[in-house]
Amino acid sequence: AHLNPAVTLSFCSLGRVPWVKLLPYSLCQVLGAYLASGLVFLVYYDAIMDFSGGNLTVYGANETASIFATYPSEHLSLSSSILDQVVGTAMLMLCILPLDDQKNSPAPDALIPPIVAVVVLGIGMSMSSNCGGAINPARDLGPRLLTLTAGWGTEVFTCYNYWFWVPMMAPLLGGMVGSGMYLVFIAWHLPDLPTNPPIDSSSTKPTTEVWKQPPAPEKEGVELKTAVF
Amino acid sequence: AHLNPAVTLSFCSLGRVPWVKLLPYSLCQVLGAYLASGLVFLVYYDAIMDFSGGNLTVYGANETASIFATYPSEHLSLSSSILDQVVGTAMLMLCILPLDDQKNSPAPDALIPPIVAVVVLGIGMSMSSNCGGAINPARDLGPRLLTLTAGWGTEVFTCYNYWFWVPMMAPLLGGMVGSGMYLVFIAWHLPDLPTNPPIDSSSTKPTTEVWKQPPAPEKEGVELKTAVF
Amino acid sequence: AHLNPAVTLSFCSLGRVPWVKLLPYSLCQVLGAYLASGLVFLVYYDAIMDFSGGNLTVYGANETASIFATYPSEHLSLSSSILDQVVGTAMLMLCILPLDDQKNSPAPDALIPPIVAVVVLGIGMSMSSNCGGAINPARDLGPRLLTLTAGWGTEVFTCYNYWFWVPMMAPLLGGMVGSGMYLVFIAWHLPDLPTNPPIDSSSTKPTTEVWKQPPAPEKEGVELKTAVF
Amino acid sequence: AHLNPAVTLSFCSLGRVPWVKLLPYSLCQVLGAYLASGLVFLVYYDAIMDFSGGNLTVYGANETASIFATYPSEHLSLSSSILDQVVGTAMLMLCILPLDDQKNSPAPDALIPPIVAVVVLGIGMSMSSNCGGAINPARDLGPRLLTLTAGWGTEVFTCYNYWFWVPMMAPLLGGMVGSGMYLVFIAWHLPDLPTNPPIDSSSTKPTTEVWKQPPAPEKEGVELKTAVF
Repeated sequence: AHLNPAVTLSFCSLGRVPWVKLLPYSLCQVLGAYLASGLVFLVYYDAIMDFSGGNLTVYGANETASIFATYPSEHLSLSSSILDQVVGTAMLMLCILPLDDQKNSPAPDALIPPIVAVVVLGIGMSMSSNCGGAINPARDLGPRLLTLTAGWGTEVFTCYNYWFWVPMMAPLLGGMVGSGMYLVFIAWHLPDLPTNPPIDSSSTKPTTEVWKQPPAPEKEGVELKTAVF
Repeated sequence: AHLNPAVTLSFCSLGRVPWVKLLPYSLCQVLGAYLASGLVFLVYYDAIMDFSGGNLTVYGANETASIFATYPSEHLSLSSSILDQVVGTAMLMLCILPLDDQKNSPAPDALIPPIVAVVVLGIGMSMSSNCGGAINPARDLGPRLLTLTAGWGTEVFTCYNYWFWVPMMAPLLGGMVGSGMYLVFIAWHLPDLPTNPPIDSSSTKPTTEVWKQPPAPEKEGVELKTAVF
Repeated sequence: AHLNPAVTLSFCSLGRVPWVKLLPYSLCQVLGAYLASGLVFLVYYDAIMDFSGGNLTVYGANETASIFATYPSEHLSLSSSILDQVVGTAMLMLCILPLDDQKNSPAPDALIPPIVAVVVLGIGMSMSSNCGGAINPARDLGPRLLTLTAGWGTEVFTCYNYWFWVPMMAPLLGGMVGSGMYLVFIAWHLPDLPTNPPIDSSSTKPTTEVWKQPPAPEKEGVELKTAVF
Repeated sequence: AHLNPAVTLSFCSLGRVPWVKLLPYSLCQVLGAYLASGLVFLVYYDAIMDFSGGNLTVYGANETASIFATYPSEHLSLSSSILDQVVGTAMLMLCILPLDDQKNSPAPDALIPPIVAVVVLGIGMSMSSNCGGAINPARDLGPRLLTLTAGWGTEVFTCYNYWFWVPMMAPLLGGMVGSGMYLVFIAWHLPDLPTNPPIDSSSTKPTTEVWKQPPAPEKEGVELKTAVF
């Protein structure tokens, strides 16, 4: 129950989520972002119409498209925007993956949602100046589809030379890069946990189960809570 | 011991608070907001008089009524302001209800007050631009009554075509909508807890008790602490 | 090991700190604030001299005295500034006292310091516009003595008709008011804890000891940590 | 696995990290800061070139060197900037050292990383106006080397009369000063822990091991997590 296809793809490649779930998860994530954008559009319809003068555009001082999807700064080259999204999403994965790695002093379950929220907030605050800091294909494509269907027209996809594919594809690559870096630079260097069952078995679960199997049904609640991914 | 009639109404409809408590709770919540607003008025009396030139008004550049109650932006239609309050309060309930749902990996008791504080802060920061983000009938009606009795006159109720009923009624509807959405989309899909008593009975209480009965007397302290609702 | 004479006085009156400690604690709190202000003065000496042009004053656009002690706004009457400090400090005590009240679902020991920090931050952010939000006689008198001895002269005490006594005395009154309100409106209404020793004796200590006796030596560490009071 | 040579030096002098690790740790910390600065340079290359007009300078309205390393304000004397860095780093150590001091009510392991993050954030917010608030030789030297090699030239080292050595050396002194102050004013006054093994041996480890020996291999994960030092 993640909210970010880049995270889901990374978890699939790590064997933590079965590959068959990747497509339905991602579609639902985009659908959720589309519906939430539609609600934002309805709640702020009056304000958007007041600010834009009723003319919904992608360019100009009164543009309103960037309320929803992300767009690059004028000075930004294509390669820089790709790098921006790869780095941002790689940092996201580098911060998420240690949180429940039993070998790497995992955070308490109850603290994982606020920690992830602070990580996403921090990356968003630090790395949005180049091209909006999507680091999440669903968070970008869903609102972009909303603007396509709500009056901004096809320009939301064609503008900046069809730039829309960058926040859609680069985070997927960035998530894989970040996950690979975590494996190569950190996880593989951590000492193995003792194989005999620990005394307090509730707090230190066997590592293999967490990393190799899909979540058991009774962990569904935990997944829902950590949906801020 | 909630502070928000919309939350109390939602809890009544969920069977967590007896209906007979709804009216006295709500009246006390409005009374508390009135008294607190009166204290704010006294502490900042000099500053308010200095800023307003002694002329307490609802409109204009030197208006001071919106220090206390909420008022709509000029561009806002009635339906948008209703939707704004319904969505804001529904989001509040959607964030509060999982926190102590034993089936949904509840937060530790000690973390619930700060989490609720951050939720209210976040909704207030995100959704106040349309019409002040009341999402709480007591937080709006109490201060409005204070301004009525402290020199702003009946205009605080008659302005914007008697708009005052929106932050009074729409949050009640929004709380019900949010609670219903939590039930339909989340709670009903959670697997049942095992019926046999768990080993550590103190941390995983039987769900039925929490959702069906009013709080036991010895939990009163917990209620007082979570009064940030 | 509190940092605020108003808190220490309140704790003395509640029987939690022996009265004989009140004067030495308060003197040390003022001394600590004086020394810390001196360090601030040294670290920012160049910036203060650059901004003030070398003329250390209490009034005017280039005044620098309010970097250290608090001063009232021009529009503020004496009674309003007293009320401001009484209300602010009463709110501080109303927020502190429940935190370790065993009858009132106390916060975990490890969370008390950050909670108190957020409370002080919140009161400081909300209530500093009238007269600087001292709510702590030591935090105000110590820096004021520093400015007296570091070149601002006696005006730091004589200005605004000898206003300096307000942030020195009103917080003491406010702390007592807040503590009394907590007793009358909350503590006296809480049900008694069971008198038989609880099963997990480490987490629920007997109430009487905490409220009636001075802290035992082995709790000194806890005191040092909660020194943000 | 600290990120700050001043912290590592302090821990060496306290006997918590062996001296032989000081140099390799510090070099790796500078290398990490250099690589991270290089990544920032790449990600924001377009923005830096757009803002600076392609002319990478240390002085002037369009200077971009202070994006990376720290530089003093115009009004700042050499002695003030040294004092600034000594005080800032001493405060850092005074806040870090109690966190896992078993005699001083240590914070829970899981809370240490966020507490350290807030401490560093707070010092950075409070003490950056004089000369950028490095309080970390690696955080300053690494980015300065990056600017040296990325087009700003030798001026990043020669400017302000070779000022670069201040944020490189003063934090080392400040860390020692802060650690010494913690020992003299706090640690030596704490009562000894009982020598008999405590009942719950997992949460209260013997003090001597923590302070005298290097971390055991199985604690490596904890170190990685607390790398925000």
